[in-house]
Amino acid sequence: MRVAGLISGTSVDGIDVAVVDIAEDIQVVATATVPYAPQVRAAILAVSDAATDTSRIARLNFLLGELFAEALQKAGVPLDTIELIGSHGQTIFHEGEPVEFLGRKIASTLQIGEAAVIAERTGIDTIADFRPSDMAAGGKGAPLVPFLDYRLFRHPDRARIALNIGGIANITVIPANASPEDVIAFDTGPGNMVMDAVAPPFDRDGERARAGKVNAALLDKLLGDPYYRREPPKSSGREQYGAEFVRGTGIEIATAAELTARTIALAIERYPDTREVIVSGGGAHNIYLMERLAAIIHARVTTTAEFEIGVDAKEAILFALLAHQTHQGRVGNLPSATGARKPVILGKISRGTRPPTEA
Amino acid sequence: MRVAGLISGTSVDGIDVAVVDIAEDIQVVATATVPYAPQVRAAILAVSDAATDTSRIARLNFLLGELFAEALQKAGVPLDTIELIGSHGQTIFHEGEPVEFLGRKIASTLQIGEAAVIAERTGIDTIADFRPSDMAAGGKGAPLVPFLDYRLFRHPDRARIALNIGGIANITVIPANASPEDVIAFDTGPGNMVMDAVAPPFDRDGERARAGKVNAALLDKLLGDPYYRREPPKSSGREQYGAEFVRGTGIEIATAAELTARTIALAIERYPDTREVIVSGGGAHNIYLMERLAAIIHARVTTTAEFEIGVDAKEAILFALLAHQTHQGRVGNLPSATGARKPVILGKISRGTRPPTEA
Repeated sequence: MRVAGLISGTSVDGIDVAVVDIAEDIQVVATATVPYAPQVRAAILAVSDAATDTSRIARLNFLLGELFAEALQKAGVPLDTIELIGSHGQTIFHEGEPVEFLGRKIASTLQIGEAAVIAERTGIDTIADFRPSDMAAGGKGAPLVPFLDYRLFRHPDRARIALNIGGIANITVIPANASPEDVIAFDTGPGNMVMDAVAPPFDRDGERARAGKVNAALLDKLLGDPYYRREPPKSSGREQYGAEFVRGTGIEIATAAELTARTIALAIERYPDTREVIVSGGGAHNIYLMERLAAIIHARVTTTAEFEIGVDAKEAILFALLAHQTHQGRVGNLPSATGARKPVILGKISRGTRPPTEA
Repeated sequence: MRVAGLISGTSVDGIDVAVVDIAEDIQVVATATVPYAPQVRAAILAVSDAATDTSRIARLNFLLGELFAEALQKAGVPLDTIELIGSHGQTIFHEGEPVEFLGRKIASTLQIGEAAVIAERTGIDTIADFRPSDMAAGGKGAPLVPFLDYRLFRHPDRARIALNIGGIANITVIPANASPEDVIAFDTGPGNMVMDAVAPPFDRDGERARAGKVNAALLDKLLGDPYYRREPPKSSGREQYGAEFVRGTGIEIATAAELTARTIALAIERYPDTREVIVSGGGAHNIYLMERLAAIIHARVTTTAEFEIGVDAKEAILFALLAHQTHQGRVGNLPSATGARKPVILGKISRGTRPPTEA
């Protein structure tokens, strides 16, 4: 079955598209990232963290539906070969832990990018809203990516770790011959966030970090944070490693890169059987960081590219896979990763009606 | 198939529930209205027309999902006999006509009441978000009720009109032996709005209007509004008949009731073949208004109760029927009523997983 996956991430730089053929294995047919116009990006960021008008959210939801449909059309795969779409949409609010609200404990999440619009424009059945189903079953609605990691990287004899280096770094631990309930996933600490904050716009290849000098005293102090030795499951907030962290510590680029590599290594050391660490996310482009990881981690370090999965395409592929699961009536969350009481069928199905083929 | 329908209307007084058996005909099994706690009602009204926090909408969406699931449980029908749920949710924004937004023309609507929560709590497949599908196909997302009117009231020899008297009054015109494309639906003008505004909290049975005196000069002037003679399709805004209308005209209760009855009659007179007018909505409780309608309309005036449909239950029954249509892969909008380019399958399907029956 040929399935498209669509997502716009927290960086809000554009819509990631992956078209994959799903059978026993997953073959990537095409991937693309379609950037947002600056005014659309600004509008998304505005509703994501401040008082807004309900009208703005409603309109943005329909507008993003149009843009997601157009992004898929730009991926260069004929629409009439695609059988199903999984669209994550754009998260504008996420609160995985329940809070007191009008007298109840409520956890909630809100993704926009109207699936009815995607289904109508493409004519293809579209599944969206994956996170609420996991949260309704008591989960935190995240992370969902370990489900894909398990499917892609599970090996009969080799323990593997999938490492995603986004703003925050997180790992999916997949023991040899693992069952779904054996999978562990958690945040290791900073990903690109600290490096990005000290070397704006960013030190993509890591050349500035390579040229700098590590402040060993500061590094030791920062590594003393008990978070890094705490038992999983655990998650890092974006607020933990932002501008205030940089100001408060006076950290600069070489130390930031070393802190990132060392905290990732600390997490991976918990699993001494690990044979391979498979990296994805923007951090996989950072040549210096990848060298440092290879030097200090006991396992072989590689990237998802070795498995023909672009390091930036993993999440869009995930939502193609989750849509396929739902279409087949199969569950899509890993309770060991999200904390849900049970595995559930994720998402909501909008029916697309292909235009009748004219004779 | 036994299907539940759920809706919370624009008056935000509570959640209407209908459980119906759908086969060739539609049998109502149970109906209920479950009121909101005052703080929940206040929160819904707050996000419906003002600046708010995105967090508040996200949390309210999940909270309403819980309340909708509980409302169904309170309807007194064993959940394990219900096979499907159609939930309209609560509209917090609706803009059927496109407006300029970030460089595009965008029509939008936003209903909340998380269907993933309803599906998980009940274990029953739940279909929600009916209006966006019609709007994605170019429709105004409303009215949807003519689809039910057509199904319930279409007659081989008799032309009928279904009249709903909510805040605004609207009619569905169903010619004898009509095809779907023959159905016409539009707003006739004020329903209960003007009467409610001049006689708060309200003149439910119409006894205050009966005791009052009609201001004939004012009535004639108001009936001169060209809206009432304009060709359909047409729709009245709530803002048209609110507090400002009352202040501006100095209208009082007897004249308000007469204006309501006469504008309804003007609309119905366009269809001289009409044999029966079948009334639903809060206005059907207004004995005096019903008497006035019977006196000035040329057709027989009755209520949906004659068809074993409670006058307050029609919309919840609608969403049970629309869910059933979607479940069967059938379309649910009437393009002649909504303006859509074509009939489409409405809504989004969330899969419920009934708990395994323990032996």
